Amino acid sequence: MTRILATGTFDILHPGHLYYLEQARKYGNELYVLVARDSTIEHKPKPIVPEKQRLEMVKALRVVDHALLGSEEDMFKPLKEVQPDIIVLGHDQVFDEKELEDKLQKRGFNTKVVRLGKPHQCTLCSSGRIIKRILERKRTEL
Amino acid sequence: MTRILATGTFDILHPGHLYYLEQARKYGNELYVLVARDSTIEHKPKPIVPEKQRLEMVKALRVVDHALLGSEEDMFKPLKEVQPDIIVLGHDQVFDEKELEDKLQKRGFNTKVVRLGKPHQCTLCSSGRIIKRILERKRTEL
Repeated sequence: MTRILATGTFDILHPGHLYYLEQARKYGNELYVLVARDSTIEHKPKPIVPEKQRLEMVKALRVVDHALLGSEEDMFKPLKEVQPDIIVLGHDQVFDEKELEDKLQKRGFNTKVVRLGKPHQCTLCSSGRIIKRILERKRTEL
Repeated sequence: MTRILATGTFDILHPGHLYYLEQARKYGNELYVLVARDSTIEHKPKPIVPEKQRLEMVKALRVVDHALLGSEEDMFKPLKEVQPDIIVLGHDQVFDEKELEDKLQKRGFNTKVVRLGKPHQCTLCSSGRIIKRILERKRTEL
């Protein structure tokens, strides 16, 4: 049994999320997803959808075996519970694989970190692009 | 085997959709979902997300066994393929149960139509409310 962990905000679900989770799941046979807390998202605009709802939607996806919210204090805390064999990063996630793997090792985790390549192109495969389309439509309606 | 059909636009997925589909599935043991075509949505604003992407996201939900796009010409056409035992309508869907059941009978379908009660309240359980929140946030940022 190889346990995979994927992470993200999953603000407005789109096929880019599905692609990431489906590719991640291929590295093992049990997929855990760590959903970022509202309070810890600082490198991009705050999500539109609150964390509990984002978690509920991720849990509803067939490809996901288990989903849980991250920790507000220590990003490594939920990993103690999950004990993943492999963490799969999306192509645009901010962590550096090697650095993360080293940090994990220092904390006693025997976890590999891999990064996915770029997904296939898709017009609305980003929460940001969906938001942009909503704002553009509003502008043309005014 | 009781085959259930649920229908809708499913523009930006939210827990209201999950509630509808989960409740619908309880009426039988195989859930088909008919996703409305962009061109046939006229009683409310056109969806933000194109039909193919809306279909892809509905298919990714664990509760859904099969999903397909509606017909652009005749709403009864896909029903020939699905042959549902029961059509479950959401609390706010525009059809009248009795009228729909009569129309189905006239076309040779032996399909019952039931309507769900109101779902539990949830702040962002509507694509419209998610869009509204996006627009409100944009306004406060300007």
